[in-house]
Amino acid sequence: MTLFVASTTAPVNIATLKYWGKRDKTLNLPTNSSISVTLSQEDLRTLTSVCTGPEITEDKLWLNGSEESLKSERTQNCLADLRKLRMKLEDEDSNLPKMSKWNVVIVSENNFPTAAGLASSAAGFAALVMAIAKLYELPDSLSEISKIARKGSGSACRSLLGGYVAWEMGEKADGSDSKAVQIAPMEHWPNMKAAILVVSASKKDTPSTSGMQLTVGTSDLFQHRIKDVVPHRFVEMKQAVLEKDWPTFAELTMKDSNSFHATCLDSFPPIFYMNDVSKGIIKLCHFINAFYNETIVAYTFDAGPNAVLYYLEENESKLFAFIYELFAEVPGWDSKFSKDELTQFLSDFDSKISNQLKVELDKELYKGVTKVILTHIGPGPQSTDECLIDTKTGLPK
Amino acid sequence: MTLFVASTTAPVNIATLKYWGKRDKTLNLPTNSSISVTLSQEDLRTLTSVCTGPEITEDKLWLNGSEESLKSERTQNCLADLRKLRMKLEDEDSNLPKMSKWNVVIVSENNFPTAAGLASSAAGFAALVMAIAKLYELPDSLSEISKIARKGSGSACRSLLGGYVAWEMGEKADGSDSKAVQIAPMEHWPNMKAAILVVSASKKDTPSTSGMQLTVGTSDLFQHRIKDVVPHRFVEMKQAVLEKDWPTFAELTMKDSNSFHATCLDSFPPIFYMNDVSKGIIKLCHFINAFYNETIVAYTFDAGPNAVLYYLEENESKLFAFIYELFAEVPGWDSKFSKDELTQFLSDFDSKISNQLKVELDKELYKGVTKVILTHIGPGPQSTDECLIDTKTGLPK
Repeated sequence: MTLFVASTTAPVNIATLKYWGKRDKTLNLPTNSSISVTLSQEDLRTLTSVCTGPEITEDKLWLNGSEESLKSERTQNCLADLRKLRMKLEDEDSNLPKMSKWNVVIVSENNFPTAAGLASSAAGFAALVMAIAKLYELPDSLSEISKIARKGSGSACRSLLGGYVAWEMGEKADGSDSKAVQIAPMEHWPNMKAAILVVSASKKDTPSTSGMQLTVGTSDLFQHRIKDVVPHRFVEMKQAVLEKDWPTFAELTMKDSNSFHATCLDSFPPIFYMNDVSKGIIKLCHFINAFYNETIVAYTFDAGPNAVLYYLEENESKLFAFIYELFAEVPGWDSKFSKDELTQFLSDFDSKISNQLKVELDKELYKGVTKVILTHIGPGPQSTDECLIDTKTGLPK
Repeated sequence: MTLFVASTTAPVNIATLKYWGKRDKTLNLPTNSSISVTLSQEDLRTLTSVCTGPEITEDKLWLNGSEESLKSERTQNCLADLRKLRMKLEDEDSNLPKMSKWNVVIVSENNFPTAAGLASSAAGFAALVMAIAKLYELPDSLSEISKIARKGSGSACRSLLGGYVAWEMGEKADGSDSKAVQIAPMEHWPNMKAAILVVSASKKDTPSTSGMQLTVGTSDLFQHRIKDVVPHRFVEMKQAVLEKDWPTFAELTMKDSNSFHATCLDSFPPIFYMNDVSKGIIKLCHFINAFYNETIVAYTFDAGPNAVLYYLEENESKLFAFIYELFAEVPGWDSKFSKDELTQFLSDFDSKISNQLKVELDKELYKGVTKVILTHIGPGPQSTDECLIDTKTGLPK
């Protein structure tokens, strides 16, 4: 069996300036530009292997061990775009194998639970598109490839790049200028870290596509957000990244998360993604920043109750004096810290924080949190030799 | 002892178009006009008795049995305004007793728990101002008197009138055109009823005055709300009242509650008045309206987690088939319904609602609700012979 194989990992990204609202649902064109931080693939990544060959009889997809449909319009759009670019190469060089005519097998695995609401579709589509681009040996830039990933899942375009990433909304109706660009590589401001508090959701949230459509169609405040609020914030946040201005970056991040959730609440019927635990974490973050009289932590919430806390490495012990004290019972700490380091956080808390202030903290908050994921800024998709496909059969290993 | 005594009751009002934001903190001038429904004093009222006389040695206030300070700037402003109007009368007619020079004793009692977050300050200031206006035999119109109550507590001005009430924000810097006017008396649309679900709040909310200031100062979406959203809604909601257009009135009421809470969430730090129980009640209301494919109920939330559900009397059995089923264990039902009527609600629920739909309801919601208060639209302040002051001593009975 003649088979061509390629494998890639792709990262999760968590927006600090939120994407909410589509001006074109098929092309996934947004109503505003957005900004995100790409997270390390050591902690959160999708690994995708793809193969193609004349004997592959149909397009197939396996996701975390189960076969899934490839029929969705979004996936079909991605595959069609990739094949078109490959065909261009084949037209220019008749020696190239005619991969654009062959079916593909895609096998994909996350190293984190898909159900946890951790932007898995962004990493998933980024990995799928990058793996096929690699298989096809496409010479196009990452920004160019990001437009294809965008058609799979809007925020996936930002996972094509590492570090600090902007998704420029563009203006054109065909989406040809709606793409991800790097604001700065991770090396520019490498000490950006993230602690994700995975919050238990009792019920399924409104899916983000239908949620966006509802907000665009019914929220009176939404038009103001996209026209007057976000454009300024986009400029300010890019500038804050370039200048490594943490207090500004942090404040804009928190404000934009709140603004996005405010337009969800202003939708009709209203959409609620944050719950009382999420709100308790927001209050805790403001409490911590007020306690130190310094911006230590910035929260942001996507379309679900999980909190992503951004902070700078040099403030880690100040932050975790509180966070470890309150969430010590939640799993996830020992993957990054030794027992001695964790004990130090506890004694920092005991020695530095007055008993009077301790009373104001919500000691029950940890009951609504199932896991802490400790990670940091990371690079874009990576080629890998790890392969999920059996090159003899073209099926998952 | 020469004593002059007067007693008045005043109602609670619950806004359907929310007052949030002051353009002048001392005069309580709002950043937008608002609309409310005045609720029946059978269920929720403040009773205030006042007395004055040359032998009363100082201004004094008793509230629900405890002596309270009268020193607050707001109360002092109310008293000064009332004395100024009285002095005008005395200047015109030298036979009148010189009440404007004498101290006053004020004794006030609510027939509902003050702590429940049920707009008690609105009823309280309305009763205080009306009782003194009666004592002073002021000839001024209720709208004129409402400007004095407004200085005590903004929304108190709306409690000076019965039925459907607008608080016109006015334009003048001295507040002389910021007053309550009646859109329509209760007799115009008498079948408006309200069920208040008192939700347990675990912690004290942000006081509304400081909350408003925070929103005005920090929310980017707020300016859009007051400039572009509320002015249209104000016209539309007045029209809906005049036309007794329930579906429009209900939708605007729900949207405006959500819009107000959205600007709270967009404040920095964000303010949260609704909790997960409040949100559960919102979802339930949308579920009920969707179930009947008809607008049965409209929710609204003030600066706290309590839900006020407005509905028309003719839809009561449709609404309570759900609400009694889910909140039967909460006290408050037997004050308005016989055992047979309540049993009928339960059997309506069992017979009409399919088992499949029942599964979607949150059966635990009642655990977050401490009380249901069933009431309806009502008139403005009422004179009463009931007196809380011992006319021999000038002290509370």
